Amino acid sequence: MQYRFSKNILSTPKSFIREILKFTQTPDIISFAGGLPNKVYFPVDAVREAADKVLCEHGQEALQYTTTEGYDPLREFIVTRYKNRGIEITKDEILIVSGSQQALDLSGKVFLDTGNHVVIEKPGYLGAIQAFSIFSPHFHEVSLNTDGIDISELKEAIKKYNPKFFYATPNFQNPSGLTYSLENRKSAAEVLKDTETVIIEDDPYSEIRFLGEHLPPVKKFAHNNSILLGSFSKIVAPGLRIGWACAPKQIMEKLVIAKQAADLHTNYLAQRVLCQYLYDNDIDKHIARIRAGYLAQRTAMIEAMGEYFPEDITYTQPEGGMFLWVTMPEGFSAMELLDVAVKYHVVFVPGEPFYADGRKSNSMRLNYTCSDEKTIREGIKRLSNAIKEYAAKKR
Amino acid sequence: MQYRFSKNILSTPKSFIREILKFTQTPDIISFAGGLPNKVYFPVDAVREAADKVLCEHGQEALQYTTTEGYDPLREFIVTRYKNRGIEITKDEILIVSGSQQALDLSGKVFLDTGNHVVIEKPGYLGAIQAFSIFSPHFHEVSLNTDGIDISELKEAIKKYNPKFFYATPNFQNPSGLTYSLENRKSAAEVLKDTETVIIEDDPYSEIRFLGEHLPPVKKFAHNNSILLGSFSKIVAPGLRIGWACAPKQIMEKLVIAKQAADLHTNYLAQRVLCQYLYDNDIDKHIARIRAGYLAQRTAMIEAMGEYFPEDITYTQPEGGMFLWVTMPEGFSAMELLDVAVKYHVVFVPGEPFYADGRKSNSMRLNYTCSDEKTIREGIKRLSNAIKEYAAKKR
Repeated sequence: MQYRFSKNILSTPKSFIREILKFTQTPDIISFAGGLPNKVYFPVDAVREAADKVLCEHGQEALQYTTTEGYDPLREFIVTRYKNRGIEITKDEILIVSGSQQALDLSGKVFLDTGNHVVIEKPGYLGAIQAFSIFSPHFHEVSLNTDGIDISELKEAIKKYNPKFFYATPNFQNPSGLTYSLENRKSAAEVLKDTETVIIEDDPYSEIRFLGEHLPPVKKFAHNNSILLGSFSKIVAPGLRIGWACAPKQIMEKLVIAKQAADLHTNYLAQRVLCQYLYDNDIDKHIARIRAGYLAQRTAMIEAMGEYFPEDITYTQPEGGMFLWVTMPEGFSAMELLDVAVKYHVVFVPGEPFYADGRKSNSMRLNYTCSDEKTIREGIKRLSNAIKEYAAKKR
Repeated sequence: MQYRFSKNILSTPKSFIREILKFTQTPDIISFAGGLPNKVYFPVDAVREAADKVLCEHGQEALQYTTTEGYDPLREFIVTRYKNRGIEITKDEILIVSGSQQALDLSGKVFLDTGNHVVIEKPGYLGAIQAFSIFSPHFHEVSLNTDGIDISELKEAIKKYNPKFFYATPNFQNPSGLTYSLENRKSAAEVLKDTETVIIEDDPYSEIRFLGEHLPPVKKFAHNNSILLGSFSKIVAPGLRIGWACAPKQIMEKLVIAKQAADLHTNYLAQRVLCQYLYDNDIDKHIARIRAGYLAQRTAMIEAMGEYFPEDITYTQPEGGMFLWVTMPEGFSAMELLDVAVKYHVVFVPGEPFYADGRKSNSMRLNYTCSDEKTIREGIKRLSNAIKEYAAKKR
């Protein structure tokens, strides 16, 4: 039978990260390719106690269908946490979703018709490119600089294309590890003011800042044209699949319709267990442990790169999050390097899938949260040898 | 700020069932409006034991990210269960989803571009109408008869519109409670043969058959142009949000891309806990209890209707599932009746939202799984009084 698939799905890329998984099956491979939080920090025992308590005390309720918006005490917890950081919202502005990835899908549904315009960062999060591709928009990329989004390019793109939204990850961006400065956030909000463009601000990592000072989200300066996304995946555990979208009332009404059509509501048992865990434990103390661990891993990677890498290789120095971005000289291809690196038993994600137009890239994304410091050192040594072999061929 | 929402979301209906919820807050109201399984049958203690075991023995793994396709032993369990019923598939044909509602969304993404044609049952499941509406298709309704889908109307609709798919719920349909006969299933498959139309066969209730004999799915006779959906919501618990889609390889590849873009993967902790529960318990014995309970509730409702309802009110006699369908004389409006029924402290879902064109309806859906037999009796008595008051006004 000849299947007649939608144009939308045919234009949606497969995740390249899945393709790399086949390499990671090889024994002795060191993978900087994944995007996994370090499982040693999952609060397994505390989650087990929370699950036991919820099922003992509220079992029938926790296993039943529930409201689309999410469990109220969990929404209140998120409100309080924002309040402590100077962001005033109400629980009606919070929708609990199946990981913040789902909020990208819902945002696509709520705003995008085929051929609409979307502004994204260059490079950008490949999961967002994939989620929005389902709605067949035109992507317009705006450069990221070391202090954040390129304001003049952003202004021009919004003026020229009047995009439905600007997708941004201001903290420790995936893949680059870059962070918008406070000044840059204010300027981005200023550009959006009096436009019809909404900012979708994806913020899974802000609590995992291990250097520098916490900065307020762009939402603080652009309240009404903002959807702010958050997640428990990096501060508790991703297997729970719980994130949220924070949006003004009019947008929220549409997000709720899209959420209901998508899957009725987020896993209720997981919402209840997570909420119980959050009420019974000191989440700040827990996050402090994760931060300290990730800082040590990130520092090990940067020190090893300083020691082993050729001098013409540059890299970002993230203040938080899970990734950094390595750039080789112009004309080099990270995709070509990957073939060499596999021989040295080390893998990473080449830059290509992080560009909406799939251009060739001389950059690559490295994850440092999923290997211990010794393994990171060994992996960087191998990667360095691969780069040297590849560079010798290119010259 | 003026928001520029997508045409898609603006044409997607809110769920009417949510609107009815406000009535159910009133004390002393009897609600036949919901679609909830009876929580007294949730295996709370066994799920608690399963959760404890999973978190004790595989805690770090169960809280990590996982594959998009789903947990292999759970997929294997589903394969074995189908095999026991004479359906031969492999685990690669199973995708675990966040409740079978999500499979409707994914199917819409995989097949529908704006303006494509879709055939649905008349009346049809409102959650499906909502899920597909996001992709702005043209809906074409085909009548349901007591023995199943109207074959000549189906043939004509497929010939005339060449629809991307036909959405069908052959077992104890929501809302009508009707079931396709074996002959009707074969005829429907025969109509689809050599067309480019896929059947999306939604089957959340087949295990909850309390009268008559199990019938094979239409998939049995239309393997390659079929997506068969299943769910653990009605046989274990809906709060776990675990369902599945079963589809041939070529369709599965696209569903996996859509699933990954939608939410990466289904809640992994819930998959692991459910799987542990299924391996450690006798699910057939558990389902037998649910069947016996629902049969008693359904019988109580039918007996009460026989006793109290005026003679010109007709209703279906479901052999399984959770709903039956009550029809008043032509010219009556179930929506108007609802206003009267609220005064009598009883509610139901009027027929309107089950028609894609939102036509007026003299029918209504009653749920019998969520009230005990005494309450069902009292509710039907009240509903009968409401019908009599309304009928007196109409004449």
